[in-house]
Amino acid sequence: MTTHHPVTVTASPGVPYVDIVREFEAPVADVYRAYTEPELVAQWLGPRDLAMDIQEYDVRAGGKWAYTHTDPAGTPYGFSGVFHSVAPDRIVQTFEFDGYPGHISLESVTFVDLGGRTRIEVHSVYQSQEDRDGMVASGMERGMTEGFERLDDLLEAAAVH
Amino acid sequence: MTTHHPVTVTASPGVPYVDIVREFEAPVADVYRAYTEPELVAQWLGPRDLAMDIQEYDVRAGGKWAYTHTDPAGTPYGFSGVFHSVAPDRIVQTFEFDGYPGHISLESVTFVDLGGRTRIEVHSVYQSQEDRDGMVASGMERGMTEGFERLDDLLEAAAVH
Repeated sequence: MTTHHPVTVTASPGVPYVDIVREFEAPVADVYRAYTEPELVAQWLGPRDLAMDIQEYDVRAGGKWAYTHTDPAGTPYGFSGVFHSVAPDRIVQTFEFDGYPGHISLESVTFVDLGGRTRIEVHSVYQSQEDRDGMVASGMERGMTEGFERLDDLLEAAAVH
Repeated sequence: MTTHHPVTVTASPGVPYVDIVREFEAPVADVYRAYTEPELVAQWLGPRDLAMDIQEYDVRAGGKWAYTHTDPAGTPYGFSGVFHSVAPDRIVQTFEFDGYPGHISLESVTFVDLGGRTRIEVHSVYQSQEDRDGMVASGMERGMTEGFERLDDLLEAAAVH
């Protein structure tokens, strides 16, 4: 039976940050692969009821990424950005939602080796308090929680091992 | 005689932003060229007493930029990042100083057409309050003030016209 750890989301008042912490019952190398290989990313990132189409996912400094989530009614939601830096324990990238163009955030994902288990720490910083608050109000947490549960399942499946 | 407008730098307590506003006595097209053509950037960006060497300056989404400032004692200071988006009135890019690696900021520069004159508005957001405060304490304002004065001179010279 797959273990689904809780997600901790911190969005304190008065600062434009969102911090997310989540543990996984899998080695850091597997979690890292699931974050960096587009064919794996497509299998877990986002809520279950959205179709995922990755246009590009070039995981290197200066590489671009772009994907579209499409809901059951056929409405597409596009996301894109560029990778600033890609290290074995940390990836830093920009993020923009095409429904709110021109509002960009900077996101870092740190992979902490817990010895056969992994903790990821996501730190996002927005260009304004309003941008941050809007992202939190958009249902980000639900989509992420569901995505991480799908990632648990993927990590347990043979694909990643 | 070249007009040097004052620089307004806002770094309010408790938030990780720096906002910079500066006007120039030149059309927006000229200021934009001075910001986007590496051979022009090299002529104004930074204090006068530092030698400027641009390694790359690829002004497009996903393009990288990197330059080194070297002080009179020969000590190099490297800066680099990637461009997230490049529009005729706004450029968004990441920024990292190699003396403080892993601390990245997200910077947008907006070019406001004042009708033959130009106002630039720079909004930078840092990953933490400490990063922002450290950048302000580093003498950023002096370097920028001097750089903008050099830019005034460049805009007045034939090179940009």
